[in-house]
Amino acid sequence: MTALKLLFIFPLIIIKINANFVITRYDDECVLDPALVTEIASYENVTKHIMDQIRDYYGKTMYQEYTRFIDKFGARPSGTWILEKSIDHMIDLTKQHGLYDVTTEELEVPYWLRLMESAIMLQPRVKKIAILGFGSSVSTPSGGIHAEVIVVRSFAELEKLDRTKVQGKIVVFNEPYVSYGETVIYRTQGASKAARKGAVATLVRSITPFSIYAPHTGAQYYESNVTKIPTAAITLEDADLLQRLQEEGEKIVLEIQMAYMEDTKKSRNTLVDLKGKESPEKLVIVSGHIDSWDVGEGAMDDGGGMMISWLVPVVLNSLNLKPRRTVRAILWTAEEPGLIGAQAYLKQHKDELDKINFIMESDEGTFQPLGLDVAGSNKTRCIVQEVLKQFAPINKMENSGAPGSDIVLFIKQNVPGASLLNRNERYYWFHHSEGDTMNVQNMTNVIECAAFWAAFSYVIADLSVDLPRN
Amino acid sequence: MTALKLLFIFPLIIIKINANFVITRYDDECVLDPALVTEIASYENVTKHIMDQIRDYYGKTMYQEYTRFIDKFGARPSGTWILEKSIDHMIDLTKQHGLYDVTTEELEVPYWLRLMESAIMLQPRVKKIAILGFGSSVSTPSGGIHAEVIVVRSFAELEKLDRTKVQGKIVVFNEPYVSYGETVIYRTQGASKAARKGAVATLVRSITPFSIYAPHTGAQYYESNVTKIPTAAITLEDADLLQRLQEEGEKIVLEIQMAYMEDTKKSRNTLVDLKGKESPEKLVIVSGHIDSWDVGEGAMDDGGGMMISWLVPVVLNSLNLKPRRTVRAILWTAEEPGLIGAQAYLKQHKDELDKINFIMESDEGTFQPLGLDVAGSNKTRCIVQEVLKQFAPINKMENSGAPGSDIVLFIKQNVPGASLLNRNERYYWFHHSEGDTMNVQNMTNVIECAAFWAAFSYVIADLSVDLPRN
Repeated sequence: MTALKLLFIFPLIIIKINANFVITRYDDECVLDPALVTEIASYENVTKHIMDQIRDYYGKTMYQEYTRFIDKFGARPSGTWILEKSIDHMIDLTKQHGLYDVTTEELEVPYWLRLMESAIMLQPRVKKIAILGFGSSVSTPSGGIHAEVIVVRSFAELEKLDRTKVQGKIVVFNEPYVSYGETVIYRTQGASKAARKGAVATLVRSITPFSIYAPHTGAQYYESNVTKIPTAAITLEDADLLQRLQEEGEKIVLEIQMAYMEDTKKSRNTLVDLKGKESPEKLVIVSGHIDSWDVGEGAMDDGGGMMISWLVPVVLNSLNLKPRRTVRAILWTAEEPGLIGAQAYLKQHKDELDKINFIMESDEGTFQPLGLDVAGSNKTRCIVQEVLKQFAPINKMENSGAPGSDIVLFIKQNVPGASLLNRNERYYWFHHSEGDTMNVQNMTNVIECAAFWAAFSYVIADLSVDLPRN
Repeated sequence: MTALKLLFIFPLIIIKINANFVITRYDDECVLDPALVTEIASYENVTKHIMDQIRDYYGKTMYQEYTRFIDKFGARPSGTWILEKSIDHMIDLTKQHGLYDVTTEELEVPYWLRLMESAIMLQPRVKKIAILGFGSSVSTPSGGIHAEVIVVRSFAELEKLDRTKVQGKIVVFNEPYVSYGETVIYRTQGASKAARKGAVATLVRSITPFSIYAPHTGAQYYESNVTKIPTAAITLEDADLLQRLQEEGEKIVLEIQMAYMEDTKKSRNTLVDLKGKESPEKLVIVSGHIDSWDVGEGAMDDGGGMMISWLVPVVLNSLNLKPRRTVRAILWTAEEPGLIGAQAYLKQHKDELDKINFIMESDEGTFQPLGLDVAGSNKTRCIVQEVLKQFAPINKMENSGAPGSDIVLFIKQNVPGASLLNRNERYYWFHHSEGDTMNVQNMTNVIECAAFWAAFSYVIADLSVDLPRN
């Protein structure tokens, strides 16, 4: 609209803008061989074909299978038999859809079982406080913890406090939500920081910008040489209430009881391969994780991403479209406790990293697709950008530096990769809470994600050139 | 914007529209005495003064007192000692603010105490189902109910079913949300309808357009001559899950346990009067209810409405603005179980209804104020509309026919009245759930509601003419 207005008023300026645009795309950073540009453009018919087939047919079947999968298994926490059953189900489903190249790689995963949790405010008045322990939290001592509360808004505020003000207390972190990436440190590190000051437990404002009184769980990590204290999420509502009560000068006393069981179990990464017709040893990996937290249904995190990734080799096989390189879908296990499945894969395949041409993950929602968050050399990013042109309006390209969750481990090893950008403004409203259910999803959007994901991967897997690294 | 465009294209039409507008406002239905129009306009300075004083000073104090009230008492269910303590608190607060004309009127109210609730799906898989019993629900038999589920989308669908399909089952109502007014019948009447078909319990999709896995409670009423069966809310997410499982042909079995205690207790309506200087026997009533459900904090429903109504006589007294008629704030008790406080007031004051010049209630949120939903004769509506002109942009006028909750009883008796229109699009997201907390509120909006509410009531209470009835 702005451009049109400018065109009307200053036609000459518009021409200059266009000229600049052309120069920017083909400047020193981004000069593509015209032959490659022509080659990429030649995929337009096949990408349209793949997307149309998914939109009209395979996508609907996939969405139905996705819904059945979530309804059948629900939450699939690391270490549980239900997760293993769900992995078996996906293996069977792959074969039912005509693809038999499915393997699993076994590994050890954490098993952290939520047994019992309760919190009650006793002073200044009696009120139940909803809590949801963080993965790997220790239990409270037998008999629970009965202690005074101190509320802080930041680590800096905690650090400034005299140790005697914190000793023996429950530290409540009521940090403002900035972004998940920035704010999540209160969940992951809060217990350790508070323990160093002598706290007996921490309760952390849930990492979300919006709440209808839902606590949100997630992983946390104890630093070494620190007393392990119980740590749980509370709601935005209660965090603010406790803050206000403290500001009013009230003495706040809570009683909390938390009991968990910890063990390790076996689980599996699942690899679904469509072998490449020319360079089968070279890989384009598309992935999502099959495990979830134990609250909600793991529909959004990461049922959707897992499902659209699984579909890529399956649908290309059904369409009889074998690219030059192998397309491998990986259903990571045990992402939630700390990328455990991805770590095991990386270790087992550490000598084959140069064979991974591109690695993709969808783990931030399958709402309306927008494009990709791409990590890699400038040349790689130029090629990806050129490919994305034919997916307009799904052609946004970002560069966060750390796309995906599991795949970040590979990105750090200089493997180029990307995660799915989508309209996930409400993602953290539901994330790691009871609200992560099929109701969050919209069939049309998930199918559109799947169509883009499959067609884009196909082009990258079939291009005559590898994506160059630095 | 449309008008501006028309003005540009068809200046003559615009003139006609304006002419029509004038005619409409002063036609047979709505001819106001020019002297009255002049009189109403003369209030502009005083309404501005009231609003400015509330915006700059009294509103902030009120919001602080409001927050303290909610933080101190939390939920205030009918029949509880906490409700009575909160009433005492408001009486004290009134006196602290220099108004001593506070009386209470005692009445009997229901006391329905939630003791224990749990629901678990046993087939086709084990899953906890969040439930929240409806006020006045009976308990399950000792040992709970273990029964198959049948899901229906409407009463019509239930009616069509053969009795043998329903007998002995738990009926799940998964009705689509249309509006609260339209959809709430599934909560209020669902148990009775299902019991007539032989159901042993009902679970009802929460009456809200949006959910992060929160069940919403509310009143329900057993019809006479019907077996009283336990009845509770479930979340949108679980209602849809159960629907899908049924559509997949799965046999669904639930086990539910619900225990409640029922009794009656004494409570009080609270009347805060600023006596009129000319006709103290004539009343302008402003009101909200002080009781709440037992989940959440009753901050929105109806802490906000109660507080802005309480402020009206208090602030007018502080500003030394005594209108001709008495301004009475009523803090209704026991609205939630079925307008119990309002019924008692109506009975006790049945011979004084002609003395109520206007009755107002705010019980649908105190978000950004928009105007009023007005019930009354055409003449009354014309006067209200004329008064609203000076509150632009808070000058929207609707005519639902049944504004407010408690005051509907009075409206039905031909008393003119109004409820507060406000930007409450998200009201039902939080309504009757754990999400009804201070986090829903915004200080500026609540103060703006209070400013409008007080200034508008003042004009109505002070006008030289009574609002005419049919």
